[in-house]
Amino acid sequence: MKKVVTFGEIMGRLSPPGYSRIVQTQSFNITYGGGEANVAGGLAHLGIPAKHVTRFPNNELGKAAAGYYAQVGVDTSDIVYGEGRLGLYFVEFGAAMRPSKVTYDRADSAFANLSPSEFNWQEIFKDACWFHWTGISPAISESAAQALREAISVANALGITVSADVNYRKNLWQYGKSVQEVMPELIEGCDIIVCGKGDAEDILGIVPDGSTKSGWHSICKQIKAQFPRLKKIINTKRGQISASQNTLSAVSFDGDKVLKSDTVEISQIVDRIGGGDAFMAGYIYGNLIYGDEAQSLAFGVAASALKHTIEGDINRANLDEIELVMKGDLSGRLNR
Amino acid sequence: MKKVVTFGEIMGRLSPPGYSRIVQTQSFNITYGGGEANVAGGLAHLGIPAKHVTRFPNNELGKAAAGYYAQVGVDTSDIVYGEGRLGLYFVEFGAAMRPSKVTYDRADSAFANLSPSEFNWQEIFKDACWFHWTGISPAISESAAQALREAISVANALGITVSADVNYRKNLWQYGKSVQEVMPELIEGCDIIVCGKGDAEDILGIVPDGSTKSGWHSICKQIKAQFPRLKKIINTKRGQISASQNTLSAVSFDGDKVLKSDTVEISQIVDRIGGGDAFMAGYIYGNLIYGDEAQSLAFGVAASALKHTIEGDINRANLDEIELVMKGDLSGRLNR
Amino acid sequence: MKKVVTFGEIMGRLSPPGYSRIVQTQSFNITYGGGEANVAGGLAHLGIPAKHVTRFPNNELGKAAAGYYAQVGVDTSDIVYGEGRLGLYFVEFGAAMRPSKVTYDRADSAFANLSPSEFNWQEIFKDACWFHWTGISPAISESAAQALREAISVANALGITVSADVNYRKNLWQYGKSVQEVMPELIEGCDIIVCGKGDAEDILGIVPDGSTKSGWHSICKQIKAQFPRLKKIINTKRGQISASQNTLSAVSFDGDKVLKSDTVEISQIVDRIGGGDAFMAGYIYGNLIYGDEAQSLAFGVAASALKHTIEGDINRANLDEIELVMKGDLSGRLNR
Amino acid sequence: MKKVVTFGEIMGRLSPPGYSRIVQTQSFNITYGGGEANVAGGLAHLGIPAKHVTRFPNNELGKAAAGYYAQVGVDTSDIVYGEGRLGLYFVEFGAAMRPSKVTYDRADSAFANLSPSEFNWQEIFKDACWFHWTGISPAISESAAQALREAISVANALGITVSADVNYRKNLWQYGKSVQEVMPELIEGCDIIVCGKGDAEDILGIVPDGSTKSGWHSICKQIKAQFPRLKKIINTKRGQISASQNTLSAVSFDGDKVLKSDTVEISQIVDRIGGGDAFMAGYIYGNLIYGDEAQSLAFGVAASALKHTIEGDINRANLDEIELVMKGDLSGRLNR
Amino acid sequence: MKKVVTFGEIMGRLSPPGYSRIVQTQSFNITYGGGEANVAGGLAHLGIPAKHVTRFPNNELGKAAAGYYAQVGVDTSDIVYGEGRLGLYFVEFGAAMRPSKVTYDRADSAFANLSPSEFNWQEIFKDACWFHWTGISPAISESAAQALREAISVANALGITVSADVNYRKNLWQYGKSVQEVMPELIEGCDIIVCGKGDAEDILGIVPDGSTKSGWHSICKQIKAQFPRLKKIINTKRGQISASQNTLSAVSFDGDKVLKSDTVEISQIVDRIGGGDAFMAGYIYGNLIYGDEAQSLAFGVAASALKHTIEGDINRANLDEIELVMKGDLSGRLNR
Amino acid sequence: MKKVVTFGEIMGRLSPPGYSRIVQTQSFNITYGGGEANVAGGLAHLGIPAKHVTRFPNNELGKAAAGYYAQVGVDTSDIVYGEGRLGLYFVEFGAAMRPSKVTYDRADSAFANLSPSEFNWQEIFKDACWFHWTGISPAISESAAQALREAISVANALGITVSADVNYRKNLWQYGKSVQEVMPELIEGCDIIVCGKGDAEDILGIVPDGSTKSGWHSICKQIKAQFPRLKKIINTKRGQISASQNTLSAVSFDGDKVLKSDTVEISQIVDRIGGGDAFMAGYIYGNLIYGDEAQSLAFGVAASALKHTIEGDINRANLDEIELVMKGDLSGRLNR
Repeated sequence: MKKVVTFGEIMGRLSPPGYSRIVQTQSFNITYGGGEANVAGGLAHLGIPAKHVTRFPNNELGKAAAGYYAQVGVDTSDIVYGEGRLGLYFVEFGAAMRPSKVTYDRADSAFANLSPSEFNWQEIFKDACWFHWTGISPAISESAAQALREAISVANALGITVSADVNYRKNLWQYGKSVQEVMPELIEGCDIIVCGKGDAEDILGIVPDGSTKSGWHSICKQIKAQFPRLKKIINTKRGQISASQNTLSAVSFDGDKVLKSDTVEISQIVDRIGGGDAFMAGYIYGNLIYGDEAQSLAFGVAASALKHTIEGDINRANLDEIELVMKGDLSGRLNR
Repeated sequence: MKKVVTFGEIMGRLSPPGYSRIVQTQSFNITYGGGEANVAGGLAHLGIPAKHVTRFPNNELGKAAAGYYAQVGVDTSDIVYGEGRLGLYFVEFGAAMRPSKVTYDRADSAFANLSPSEFNWQEIFKDACWFHWTGISPAISESAAQALREAISVANALGITVSADVNYRKNLWQYGKSVQEVMPELIEGCDIIVCGKGDAEDILGIVPDGSTKSGWHSICKQIKAQFPRLKKIINTKRGQISASQNTLSAVSFDGDKVLKSDTVEISQIVDRIGGGDAFMAGYIYGNLIYGDEAQSLAFGVAASALKHTIEGDINRANLDEIELVMKGDLSGRLNR
Repeated sequence: MKKVVTFGEIMGRLSPPGYSRIVQTQSFNITYGGGEANVAGGLAHLGIPAKHVTRFPNNELGKAAAGYYAQVGVDTSDIVYGEGRLGLYFVEFGAAMRPSKVTYDRADSAFANLSPSEFNWQEIFKDACWFHWTGISPAISESAAQALREAISVANALGITVSADVNYRKNLWQYGKSVQEVMPELIEGCDIIVCGKGDAEDILGIVPDGSTKSGWHSICKQIKAQFPRLKKIINTKRGQISASQNTLSAVSFDGDKVLKSDTVEISQIVDRIGGGDAFMAGYIYGNLIYGDEAQSLAFGVAASALKHTIEGDINRANLDEIELVMKGDLSGRLNR
Repeated sequence: MKKVVTFGEIMGRLSPPGYSRIVQTQSFNITYGGGEANVAGGLAHLGIPAKHVTRFPNNELGKAAAGYYAQVGVDTSDIVYGEGRLGLYFVEFGAAMRPSKVTYDRADSAFANLSPSEFNWQEIFKDACWFHWTGISPAISESAAQALREAISVANALGITVSADVNYRKNLWQYGKSVQEVMPELIEGCDIIVCGKGDAEDILGIVPDGSTKSGWHSICKQIKAQFPRLKKIINTKRGQISASQNTLSAVSFDGDKVLKSDTVEISQIVDRIGGGDAFMAGYIYGNLIYGDEAQSLAFGVAASALKHTIEGDINRANLDEIELVMKGDLSGRLNR
Repeated sequence: MKKVVTFGEIMGRLSPPGYSRIVQTQSFNITYGGGEANVAGGLAHLGIPAKHVTRFPNNELGKAAAGYYAQVGVDTSDIVYGEGRLGLYFVEFGAAMRPSKVTYDRADSAFANLSPSEFNWQEIFKDACWFHWTGISPAISESAAQALREAISVANALGITVSADVNYRKNLWQYGKSVQEVMPELIEGCDIIVCGKGDAEDILGIVPDGSTKSGWHSICKQIKAQFPRLKKIINTKRGQISASQNTLSAVSFDGDKVLKSDTVEISQIVDRIGGGDAFMAGYIYGNLIYGDEAQSLAFGVAASALKHTIEGDINRANLDEIELVMKGDLSGRLNR
Repeated sequence: MKKVVTFGEIMGRLSPPGYSRIVQTQSFNITYGGGEANVAGGLAHLGIPAKHVTRFPNNELGKAAAGYYAQVGVDTSDIVYGEGRLGLYFVEFGAAMRPSKVTYDRADSAFANLSPSEFNWQEIFKDACWFHWTGISPAISESAAQALREAISVANALGITVSADVNYRKNLWQYGKSVQEVMPELIEGCDIIVCGKGDAEDILGIVPDGSTKSGWHSICKQIKAQFPRLKKIINTKRGQISASQNTLSAVSFDGDKVLKSDTVEISQIVDRIGGGDAFMAGYIYGNLIYGDEAQSLAFGVAASALKHTIEGDINRANLDEIELVMKGDLSGRLNR
């Protein structure tokens, strides 16, 4: 099978054990995560060849982060090393009505300081069938945006499917360009995007125009009109009952109508970070294996729901577990 | 008070901390468990004299397993040591819709390789009033089945109550005999069995005959007809809402009619392994202390429900805690 | 801002990790707590100047306990050190229908053996605006009761608001005086008390007289008649669904009518010890910052609810988290 | 084989992990230990039947302590339960020039409050061949001294060997009697004592009289003259290089001359608490198995040296390991 | 007693447990440390009033770091909070011939970005008798150097003793000024400096001129000639046997002759980070309490040696432990 | 650079934390190791391309073991999965005179049950320059010996350097063939072997013939005569001071004379398992990078010495650390 390639920053994630807060803890658990690498990780765990491309500091933390993804089975051979630091983020886990809280310490990372010429995309995309990126990368630095521009261009030239989670994070865009200046050109090279209502408005200035009952449907139509290459626009919907309990579903727009998945209840959340990335990995898996949109959505939702029961950013749910949830079995019956 | 004696394999149970998976963990918690020994452990914790008989490897792991049960108060003086290994099983704990997953590594254990002559049942049963076994032992090896045969025969001769959880596990029967060849003779020596619909069909080929509204009632009647020594057939019923939430109840057939316990909701599961054994320990406790079937069932269900909140295979719920649940108080009010 | 001063015993709290029991554990987590110090801790965490006064043994445990509160920001400069031991209590955490269980080992502590002359209340109350105590201190020893008597008298003379959680614990009153002999005089010096139905009957012999629909309302009227200084009588109400799930609300009597807060559901309890103290800290915060009874109650209930998701006796919920819950947002939405 | 019986207090031992101090730690490791019970534990680990007699509080800590010794194989069936608390002690582990530091919290324990009538020594000593006690028990309380007096008297009547580590601890004698008033009568019933120079002076007022080159030799002669029943006086000698490195040897006086063991270097100390008790267990083992004084001393020293590499108070060194050290092999060569 | 004030950056220190490396670990222990704050911490632990002044990010990590020093007893009331991140450093602990390895991630911290006007030194130095700083602060940023310049100037005006560890770290000086441009002016305001041969050459261009047998003696004479305010120049000398074993001594120059301390062997190193700061805290303690240079040196060396057995950057050795080592007792005899 | 390929069994290694014994522990740390895979791991850590070939059970433990080596950078793409179990071994870490103790539980593993046809050596050795195996593999099963025979034959045909650690373990040879029947043929295909005196006698029946002063020299001459392909015979020499302290050196025979490395003292052992494999990895590194026998030996000894300070079987010492030790610097000076 051909490879899925992802590109983006990987950070160290430091979290106090249990429900402890930073002001209380004497230790942090460390995992490594990034919105794009998590997709590669989730796919590799399911046996799909996946490669992640990033830039790490040439120090012990960069080596540790690379090893973390290699352990999952991600191809790390095109990772670049150089000056800088590893971005970090701290997560305090909440429960019931107390939210989990993320404190970022990611400025000035080795990734942000990458040089586009460090990446040979023709080489990287050899044997690739899919390229996935997110809206976080072009937000980090001019050079990251430029590297991404080049990657998309090469992918398009090679006929590789390009997907993106457009994911607008207001706090990140600090290097002098706005999301509106940068993102449209990048979306133009995409076949599939994940895009919610808020993203559409923030990035593209698109709001529901009342032409359809569902606001999101209307938005998708307008996006499709603006970006004709797009084959699918997808989105996930989280019902936020408490920090410990959520519901999850997904929708897909095929250029015309909207397909809706079932809603899965997640009755006890272990770690929700990476839930969206697990959906994306599942959705890509569905595209590659089932080739059916309804099944891809269902598989993505099941994978994402299961990710909420898995520690760390990467989805380690097994195939049989995902398939069971996909079939609607949420009983969690002991597996001997 | 006279002793309850149990016989069967004890394995080491290795589980990653929290909800971690084997592919993620750098450590395993170890406890030791076995379906029969857990009954002895649960009884000893409540102050009932209990002895467990098994065969351990003559190495550090065998000693550790024996010490684990001695710590709970189980009489380990008749345990036999010899060549072989300690069987192991690995448990990954699930949550919400993710099932807990058990990976067995129990083949060729010191127990499987026992020689029946290593056990002097006349000695072992001195001062005993009850003997409990399960369908796992005769599934492990010819010699284990033979040792059990001798134990039951001696117990019958001494007038000791014999109970069994018939518990058919398809994967285990590997030594050339089928469950149907072996089990009926063993059940013949029993006064009380735990037996569900599936077990009845798999082991005895008995299916509901429509003579009663409840299929299980009908099955019990047929079993009773085949095994006249049986005084009680019991069963537990688990409602599987999710890996984190179950309900539990039990039924008892007295040769004529079926008695049903209340259903207890277990709203947050800590560790469900050993839940069935905790029921059995509770049911035996009820028989010995209350001498009333309804109370025995209720005590068994309460004990089993509480086991789901206890770490490890052995029920460490205290008497006052079980009695409170038995009375229907599930409030978990702080006990100062 | 002027200081809130609290006075009372601080004990070491030893609890097995997770849901483990004392008979199972090889380690205990240690935190330090006391009903009054927890109020100071909760206030200090929110930036309110708070001082706690107590007596510690002059050993490593006393130093550790003092450092624990200093870490939170509590002024520990008036703590007295002397002979004796640090009181301890052991907590086994329950789940579902299994209650958490507290085993006390607090007899003969350095606090119980205090000498009233060790405390110079004129000095201690310099720059103070509020003094809070609980019914536990006068229960511990004659000298503790006497020190409290002096503290209240000085506080009254200095015009400092005095509040008390009257909190009757039957097991504690062992030194020869009854709660009925000691408490009324102490309540006379209070402006605000926390007092439930049971406390009113046990301490003051007051029961509902049928004059109002709500029994507690009727009790408050009688208490007010007996203690004219009292401006507010408050109480919290806990709905005990299970050890893992509670509801919480509060009421306040202003001398005439009863004000009721909304009820907050706590869907996953992490650690409920100190929940009442967190309410009191929140209520005092509300009085000092909002100066509005309804908001004080709501803030107190929100703070207390969040405490149930925090490890340890002291509430480490942040101001923005409390304010969100106070506004009715229990969604626990990820805070990036 | 007949049993070795020991009698004395068992305390909970709480120690911060690693080299952490109490003011730094958020957790304590717990083990349970007592100078006499450690002897029983060390013997049971080597397969010698051993019973320990004590009085525990009837709470979770008492049960945990009993289970801890049962796990090692000690017969705990004659332990008495009642009111009171479990004595505790806290150990901070030192390294290099920093001493390990013990903080006691043992006052007013269930053991101190025992009633002599709770112990039926005729029953307890059934099948016993040896009784061992230490100078700590008569120091704790009048009633403990009295129980010991009765035990020794019964042991003497039954012809059981009586040994004692006279171990004078100045801080303990608080109940109104002096060591000089109490101990001589107890020593009178002994066949073997461990007694150093300091002990001899403090307890018996005996100092070297110059009659022999070695002061200890001279002291032993005088003790022997005063206590004609004594067959052996023994002592261990610790060379204190640092908290991490010690040397160890032992001497034995047979009523006439002094026998000296080799000196063993302990080049890396893991946990030295219980080292003396491990010597005693080893010495008793030597007496029972070898019946040769030189071998008993050598085995005791080897056992004690190995105890310094074992975590917890009880010696878990295996027989083959002790025998190797006894033969002078300190190489610690990997044992596959 | 008047206060010792220190000023400088505090970083989070993340270290894998045991001897694990960053590429192996799943968790980091966190403590907080800084060369100047460690001096305040060491003094506060010994009961000397000590205040640390720094600038923290206004986030959970800044609060945690402040709480860490408050726990030790350091006055944190003049710490300033603002934008930025908390500097971090990662420590892998070595053993035998493997060095401990530090990976810094401290660029662009809240401290580096301080504004001198945020510190009101007149207020800060109220009730102070001593001000201590190190050569790290002026290396971090222009503004940090400026704040320090102002602090020294105010301290000089108030007659407060000023000490500095000149500590040249080549990697740090990145903001455009050289150490030679910045440091001399700062040293001019000092009464006492710690300065080794290498520092003297790197910072002041001073090398031994052969006028005395000891090179360091000759350097001190030249420094004294250049900085007449200096009353003492001190230095520590580490013998580096292995990562696990060092020796330590100190020298002091009083303007004329050199005083030498004894050499202390550290036979088992637990954590050597902060050893130099512990010396400085001990030396200041000696000055304030003994007022004798030889005793100050000896106390400093003893304190520093003991710090090598303490986990974390701050010295938690107790006064009696330091005094024992100061007297030459390195036996580490158990302290009951 | 071309790859180093290794072939052999990988087992799970379970060890209690610290110096705890199996009978004491409630948890095991898990790493994965095998004498050949450790060589690949040590090389990959130094940046040398390395591939390990083995057969794993197709379960969670097999996946975890593969991921463990992938994390280090070992190419795991030719690992085969199938029926069976993962071999395990348990390690209790000793200290001072207490040896570390290994308990094996490796019988009947997926590796032992391999089929030679599962390995396509032509494919596996593409781009390889070196093949390393050990005497453990042919001891495990007939089929493992056969697979190895084929591997060596292909390697010889392809002109790949073949090295072996002949490592005779008496307990392993259980499948009916003796080491003398199997090994000589395998050694015939080797260019380099590690072989000690004991191995030479046990495997080849070769003993010193007195022709040289050194017995090992004489043995090497005889081996060389028997196996003309051999270019080098090497051996390591361990001085066993205690479980905590060893010395290490190595010798190499070039067909004529013996070259000796310096002896390195390892003053504090953290984990000596894998020390021999680390030597081999270092020796191969030396061959590939330096191409000088003396440097290869020195690098191997330095690498092995450092391995003793590293947790787990695989050497994670960095290149600069090894080079420093190679130069004779054992000071362990802090590396900032």
